[in-house]
This record gives sequence, C-alpha cells and structure tokens, in this order.
Amino acid sequence: MDITFIGSGNMTRGIATRALAGGHSVTILGHQAEGAAALAGELNGNIGSGVVGDPIRGDVVVLATPYDAVAEVLGQYAGQLDGKVVVDITNPVDFSTFTPLTLAAGSVAQEIATKAPGAKVVKAFNTTFAGTLVEGQVAGQPLDVLIAADDEDAKQTVTDLVDGSGLRAVDAGPLARAHELEALGYLHMALQDKLGTGFGSTVKVLA
Amino acid sequence: MDITFIGSGNMTRGIATRALAGGHSVTILGHQAEGAAALAGELNGNIGSGVVGDPIRGDVVVLATPYDAVAEVLGQYAGQLDGKVVVDITNPVDFSTFTPLTLAAGSVAQEIATKAPGAKVVKAFNTTFAGTLVEGQVAGQPLDVLIAADDEDAKQTVTDLVDGSGLRAVDAGPLARAHELEALGYLHMALQDKLGTGFGSTVKVLA
Repeated sequence: MDITFIGSGNMTRGIATRALAGGHSVTILGHQAEGAAALAGELNGNIGSGVVGDPIRGDVVVLATPYDAVAEVLGQYAGQLDGKVVVDITNPVDFSTFTPLTLAAGSVAQEIATKAPGAKVVKAFNTTFAGTLVEGQVAGQPLDVLIAADDEDAKQTVTDLVDGSGLRAVDAGPLARAHELEALGYLHMALQDKLGTGFGSTVKVLA
Repeated sequence: MDITFIGSGNMTRGIATRALAGGHSVTILGHQAEGAAALAGELNGNIGSGVVGDPIRGDVVVLATPYDAVAEVLGQYAGQLDGKVVVDITNPVDFSTFTPLTLAAGSVAQEIATKAPGAKVVKAFNTTFAGTLVEGQVAGQPLDVLIAADDEDAKQTVTDLVDGSGLRAVDAGPLARAHELEALGYLHMALQDKLGTGFGSTVKVLA
C-alpha cells in the first residue's frame, strides 16, 4: 500500500522503517521540505518526500505530528481526508508540565473523527516508541501495536500494515478505546524515568 | 507484614497466594464467614479468616471487592482505616454493559482518598488477573504490578510486598496515575475476547 506521513520526526522514522520493511511505499511530508527529504534519504525502499500541504498519495495517512499540531493539519487537508484511512498516533499531553490533557471528546482520535467526519480514523502506534519501532522488537519480542477503530476495513488495513511489518497487531476494539490507549501511551512515557529505560521499552500483552 | 483482605473472591485468592509465598500473614474477611474460611483453608501459610466488619489485623488492608461495594466497606470501617495502607485493586466498570465508568475524582483510588482522608491509599494489582497472580508469572516472566500512591512509605510497603512475592513492582507515580492504571485495567480486560487469552495474560513493560 501507499502511505503518506504528515510530519518528519522520530515517529515517522520508526513507523516508516517498519512500513518499508513490509514492502510498502512511503511518502514523507515535512513542515520543511529539507527535513522530509533528509529522512527519506536515510531510509531504504520505495520512498519519496514533500512538504505539508502537498497532496496525499495513497489511501493511508499517518498524522505523525504532536497533538497540538493536529488541528492545523486537519484544516490544511480539509476535504482531502474523505475516504482515507487516517492513523492517529498522538498522545494528548502538555509537554511543558508533562501532564495528561483531558479531552471532552474522550480522546484525540475521537476529536479527529468529529472534525474530519469523512475520514476513517484509526488509533494506533501511540503506545510504541520511535526507537523501538526502528528495531521492530524489544527483548526478542515483536512490539504490540494496539489498534482501535470503528471502521472495520480501516482497522484491517492498519492490522495488515502492522502484521506485515514484523510487529503484532492487537485489536483494541472501537474508536472509543482510544481513550484507554491514550492513557496507556501517557503512562508508558511517564514510567520511563522510574524504570530508567530511556524510551527503549515496550508494553506487551503476554500470554 | 500482616495483611487483611476485605472480600474472599478470586483476586483475594491471587494476591493472598503471593503474599503467603512472600512469608506474610494473611487475614481474609468475607461477606460470608464460610466463604472466607473455605478460601483460607485452600491456602498454605499463616492465614486466618473472619467476616467483613471484624477488626482489621495489621497495617495493610486490601479492598478486594468490586468497585460498587467499596463505598459500603468504607462506611463500615469509617475511622478504622486511619494510618493504614489501603490497597485499592478495583476497576470502575459497569459490568452489566462492560463499559468503563467516568469518575469525577479521576479514579476509584482518588475517590477512596477523599472518602477516607486518614488512609494511605495505594493503587495496585488492578491490571493483573487473579489466575496469573496465583501462578506469579506468565510465559516465564514475573507479573508487573503497577503501583501509584502519594504516600511514599505506603508505596514502599506495597513495593516490598510485591517484590518479595516473586512479582515485579513498577512505580507508576502519584495517586493521580490511578486514572491511567484504571484505564489500562479496563483495556486489559477488554482485550481478552479478541486475544482469546481467557484472563490468562499479563501486561508487561519489557526493555
């Protein structure tokens, strides 16, 4: 599949690395064209780059921006997200105080679904860290990627992307579960200091 | 240490099994004396039983009741929880519809802290399942027990209990993090159906 990333930061590096490993085509749109081109140049596979505002290539868009940039991106792409699988990877956190934000919608993902009603919003990758995505595993175990969505076809698309990239997709239920996924995303970040794991850990459901 | 359990269900069986393995003394108070005595008879070690309403033995109390029974227990033990380490293991879920409850206090643990201001409330064990606690491990890995509390001495007491019982204590921060722990507790339960793991899984932070 063709996947467009909005944003050219560490999470794009991580998820795009896995998507390319799975044989998919990737386009990275950065706020600066140079940053996106530099990241594209680092990675191997079918990859291109551009600037945020360029048209979306393919049916899957990953919003790989911090939460506070999501509204602007939605505004820029108003109407262009209809029918697309829009993957929300954000965690709603005030990073100046490192406190979680409480959203009236319940979660960022549900907020996006309200603002872009034609999009097929999927919450995923918000509980995984960038560096571990590059590696694809921690302690010999494939990362668990928890996936919540209301649109079953969109959920299946992201599930296929995850499973085909050497990770393990876990169906976390409807989009409303994004509330719990975002709580877990914040918790996982908050644990780093005490565990001393330097954002190199992964949350795994073992059985 | 001496640990009193309020409730004689599966979670008491699980946590008490680990506490006894760690060499601690356990008292189980059941809503029916017979149920508590039967469970005590199943377990090996320094264990006694009684009925809910009996005095608390020791400095650590585990509220091993469903969320909707917590208020009644707090009423019954009003004043007797002052200075005690009160371990809240609940998840706020409407089990008739299996939907998470939104609490104004942020979490059950914070609700308890408001209702019993003299108690040293610790959130723990709400992300672990009863059967896995009996075993102490899943897939060869010790269970992670996420612990949130504002009172550092109380947190250390529960940390020692957990670490001394063959499990791994993970410091999840202040009591406010109980919100995220309860979200994770619900999410872990909600995943069972799709994963087909029959409440035999554990959530582990691997590094």
